[in-house]
Amino acid sequence: MIDLTLIGIGTGNPQHLTLQAVQALAAQDLILIPNKGAGKDDLAGLRHDICARALDGCATPPRIVEFDLPVRDEATQDYRQRVDDWHDAIAAIWWQAICANLPEGGRVGFLVWGDPSLYDSTMRIAERLKARADIRLNVIPGITSIQALTAAHAIPINEINGPFTITTGRQLRDGGWPASADTVVVMLDGACSFQSLAPEGITIWWTAYAGMENEISITGPLGEVGAQIIETRAKARAEHGWLMDIYLMRRS
Amino acid sequence: MIDLTLIGIGTGNPQHLTLQAVQALAAQDLILIPNKGAGKDDLAGLRHDICARALDGCATPPRIVEFDLPVRDEATQDYRQRVDDWHDAIAAIWWQAICANLPEGGRVGFLVWGDPSLYDSTMRIAERLKARADIRLNVIPGITSIQALTAAHAIPINEINGPFTITTGRQLRDGGWPASADTVVVMLDGACSFQSLAPEGITIWWTAYAGMENEISITGPLGEVGAQIIETRAKARAEHGWLMDIYLMRRS
Ligand SMILES: C[S@@+](CC[C@H](N)C(=O)[O-])C[C@H]1O[C@@H](n2cnc3c(N)ncnc32)[C@H](O)[C@@H]1O
Ligand SMILES: C[S@@+](CC[C@H](N)C(=O)[O-])C[C@H]1O[C@@H](n2cnc3c(N)ncnc32)[C@H](O)[C@@H]1O
Repeated sequence: MIDLTLIGIGTGNPQHLTLQAVQALAAQDLILIPNKGAGKDDLAGLRHDICARALDGCATPPRIVEFDLPVRDEATQDYRQRVDDWHDAIAAIWWQAICANLPEGGRVGFLVWGDPSLYDSTMRIAERLKARADIRLNVIPGITSIQALTAAHAIPINEINGPFTITTGRQLRDGGWPASADTVVVMLDGACSFQSLAPEGITIWWTAYAGMENEISITGPLGEVGAQIIETRAKARAEHGWLMDIYLMRRS
Repeated sequence: MIDLTLIGIGTGNPQHLTLQAVQALAAQDLILIPNKGAGKDDLAGLRHDICARALDGCATPPRIVEFDLPVRDEATQDYRQRVDDWHDAIAAIWWQAICANLPEGGRVGFLVWGDPSLYDSTMRIAERLKARADIRLNVIPGITSIQALTAAHAIPINEINGPFTITTGRQLRDGGWPASADTVVVMLDGACSFQSLAPEGITIWWTAYAGMENEISITGPLGEVGAQIIETRAKARAEHGWLMDIYLMRRS
C-alpha cells in the first residue's frame, strides 16, 4: 500500500507554503524531487531549500531522493501522444524509485509547483500508478500563480459577480478572446500571445516570477504597455536563464 | 500613513494558512474582525481561533478589535447601487475603527476568507479608504475554495492545455453553460443552479465545507447525482445553520 501525496508549494516564495504542506512534508517516508538537468530552471534547488526549511527540527525526516526526468520524444508527431508517452515514462521512473526506496510500502510525497490541480501533469502521472499498485492519492492545495499575480497587483480577479476564464497562450492565439468572459487570465504563454489581439479597450496586468524575489510587474492599456512587456520579458529571460510569467486582461 | 494588509486565510481549515500569512498577522498593530451578528455563520469565531494560533508566542501581538457589519438596505431597488452603498458604509466603519485604534497611523490587517482577489469585496472596500488617507494596500494570497474543491476530489481543474471558466450560480442560471470552455466552476450558488442545465454528458464534482472538518463531497454524472446533491445540501444546511459549497462540471 502506497500513500502518495501531491503537495502544493506555491509559486517560488518559500513563505507560500501552508501549515498543512509543512506538516505533510514532515509526515512522508520518502520525498521524490525531479531533476530537469543543468541549464534548466533552478527549481530542484528551490525544492531542496523548501524541504530543508520545512523539515528543520523534524525528528524523523523523510528520505529525499532525486530522479532524472526523461525528455519528450520529439520524433512522435502527435502532440497528445507525445505527452502521453512522456507521462508513461515518468510514471515508470517514479515506480522504480518507489520500489527501490519503499519496498514495504509507505508514504511518498511530491512537491508540486503552485497548486497540483492547475496546469500540472503530476496528478495525471500519479493516476497511472494506480494500475501498478494499491495507491491512495492525497492532494494538499497550494497558492497558484493566479493568486500570486492578483496579489502582486492588489486587484480582484473578477468584476462584481462576473465570470472569468483561465486559458493558455496557445488557446488565445488559436481561438482569440474567449467568448464568455470580459476577464481572462493567460498562463503557459511562451510567445506573448496578447499580440494576436486588437488592443483597443483591453487593460493588462502582467507579472513575471510572481511571488519571488525578482518579481516584475507591468500594468496599463495593452496598446501602451504591450511592447514594454515583450522587451522586459526578453531581458529578464536572458538575465536569469529562465522565466515564468502570467497575465490578466480585462476588456471594457 | 496606514499600511493596510488583506490576508488570505484559506477556506476554513486553519492549516490552510501560509507561512507568509502567519508572519503578516504577527506584523500588524491592529487586526479588525467583522461580526455578522448571532445566527449567522460562525466565521468570526474561526478568525479569532486562527489569530490565537498564529500569534501564539508573538512578543508584541496586534490588538484585535471586532466591528459590526452594517446590513444592506433592501429598500434600494438597484442591486449594484445597494452593494455600492453597503461597501461605502463598511468603509466608513473601518475608518472609524482605524482612527480610534491607530490615531498615529500604523499597520492594520484583515483576515480574508480564501484568497482576497476571488469574489470578495474586501479589496473594493479598501480602495475606498484611499480617498480618506494615505493608504498602502498589500495582499497576501490564500488558498481558494477552488483549490480546496479540486484537492477534496484529487482532480485536475483543467483538461490538458484546456481553458476553464469560473462563474456564479446567477450567471449560470441566466446565461447557461459558458460558451468558451468545457470545464466550469460555479461559486456563490445558493440555488443549485446546475438544475437549469440539460444534464446529458455533464459530470459534476461537488463539495460543501471544502477543507473543513465536516467536508462533504459528491461526484458523478449530473443526471444521476443532482438530486442527491440537492438533498444533502439541504440537510447539511439545516444541521449546521450555514453552508458554503462549490462545484466543478465538465461536459464531454
Ligand atoms: C505548468 S504551469 C504550472 C502552474 C502551477 N501549478 C500553478 O498553480 O500556478 C506553469 C505556468 O504557470 C505560470 N506560473 C507559475 N509560476 C509562476 C510565477 N512564479 N510567476 C508567473 N507565472 C507563473 C506561468 O504561466 C507558467 O507558464
Ligand atoms: C464570497 S465568496 C468568497 C470566496 C473566497 N474568497 C475564496 O477564495 O474561495 C463565497 C463562495 O466561495 C465558495 N466557498 C468559500 N469557502 C468554501 C468552502 N469552505 N467550501 C465550499 N465552498 C466555499 C462558495 O461558493 C461561496 O458561495
